[in-house]
Amino acid sequence: MQVGTVIGNVWATRKEDDLTGLKFLFVQPQGPTGSPIDVPFVALDRIGAGIGDKVMVTQGSSARFVIKDKELPIDAVIIGIVDSIDVESR
Amino acid sequence: MQVGTVIGNVWATRKEDDLTGLKFLFVQPQGPTGSPIDVPFVALDRIGAGIGDKVMVTQGSSARFVIKDKELPIDAVIIGIVDSIDVESR
Amino acid sequence: MQVGTVIGNVWATRKEDDLTGLKFLFVQPQGPTGSPIDVPFVALDRIGAGIGDKVMVTQGSSARFVIKDKELPIDAVIIGIVDSIDVESR
Amino acid sequence: MQVGTVIGNVWATRKEDDLTGLKFLFVQPQGPTGSPIDVPFVALDRIGAGIGDKVMVTQGSSARFVIKDKELPIDAVIIGIVDSIDVESR
Amino acid sequence: MQVGTVIGNVWATRKEDDLTGLKFLFVQPQGPTGSPIDVPFVALDRIGAGIGDKVMVTQGSSARFVIKDKELPIDAVIIGIVDSIDVESR
Repeated sequence: MQVGTVIGNVWATRKEDDLTGLKFLFVQPQGPTGSPIDVPFVALDRIGAGIGDKVMVTQGSSARFVIKDKELPIDAVIIGIVDSIDVESR
Repeated sequence: MQVGTVIGNVWATRKEDDLTGLKFLFVQPQGPTGSPIDVPFVALDRIGAGIGDKVMVTQGSSARFVIKDKELPIDAVIIGIVDSIDVESR
Repeated sequence: MQVGTVIGNVWATRKEDDLTGLKFLFVQPQGPTGSPIDVPFVALDRIGAGIGDKVMVTQGSSARFVIKDKELPIDAVIIGIVDSIDVESR
Repeated sequence: MQVGTVIGNVWATRKEDDLTGLKFLFVQPQGPTGSPIDVPFVALDRIGAGIGDKVMVTQGSSARFVIKDKELPIDAVIIGIVDSIDVESR
Repeated sequence: MQVGTVIGNVWATRKEDDLTGLKFLFVQPQGPTGSPIDVPFVALDRIGAGIGDKVMVTQGSSARFVIKDKELPIDAVIIGIVDSIDVESR
């Protein structure tokens, strides 16, 4: 999983039928100390994340398992709001 | 998912049988403010996107779920036409 | 999907049983105007591509769906011979 | 798989229901001689790894197979504690 | 698939139960002419590869299909020993 910060909303009226009513957010992935790593991407949000929230994101085809009863064509989903990260480098 | 702009068409007469009649477009992925990120790739289009459209694309094996009744060997699909992106960096 | 050019053959006598008789080709991925992008990789070929052909390749676990009746441990497959690419950058 | 060192804990109270009670660790991937490669990521831990441990991590949708009875939306899991690595470059 | 050379062994006594008795090797991926590309990673070996062997490796969740009767949490597997590579760049 990646940790990142929600930086925007994506609006798309015309889309695949299965995706109607779902919310998509832009996420900037970050390292454990908060520095940006890699490029931003769009993730499905089902837990009510908002701009500025630090979130944990699952990528790839595992993302579809947040909704069990239908197989959605999505490749990234926010799975948690991060409370804190303890980092210790040795 | 990635957001990007459709920049071209790919024509391939000789292809795997399952893919006959499908439309493939070249997409240049972009960051939330429109700057190009990473290299262009080819995505299946089922919703009628055209050159210049800003689209949302799912990559990896989740892409196949846009068509439920047969398992297509595709790894990228356009899932929506983007109306707008609101970005706020903190 | 990626577009690329077939640049070589890979020969491997000793391999997993399911893969006996299959043909593997080295592909150099390319951008829409033909410039090389990223590093070459090996793809399964079932449609008779040869060295110098421009091909369309599916990567990741979707690749296995070109053969429905057994689940092959492959992660890249040539799905079409590219006739032409129309690119228009705006 | 990647080999890496556990460098931190991630705490997330509000998360997808399936993930309640699971432990997530930040891992810095490393090459065979211990030099850091690529960026850190978060992995599920079920075998009791702790900060400073050298671990082997599976990424992508295969990660979900560590728990067979439910399909978790996770994309990385620690599958072993590394005792030693023998490297010989030729 | 990637072609690469086996450069080391990974030993892990404490690991997920499904993985007991399996052999894991470090592989350095290489381009068609043998130059190293990308970073080394760990792959399951079932066909008896050894240090110095040139191998073909499948990555991602397709890797699990080398063992059909149980779904292993692995993301890379050696599928063949490479005899030779013929490269012709045009």
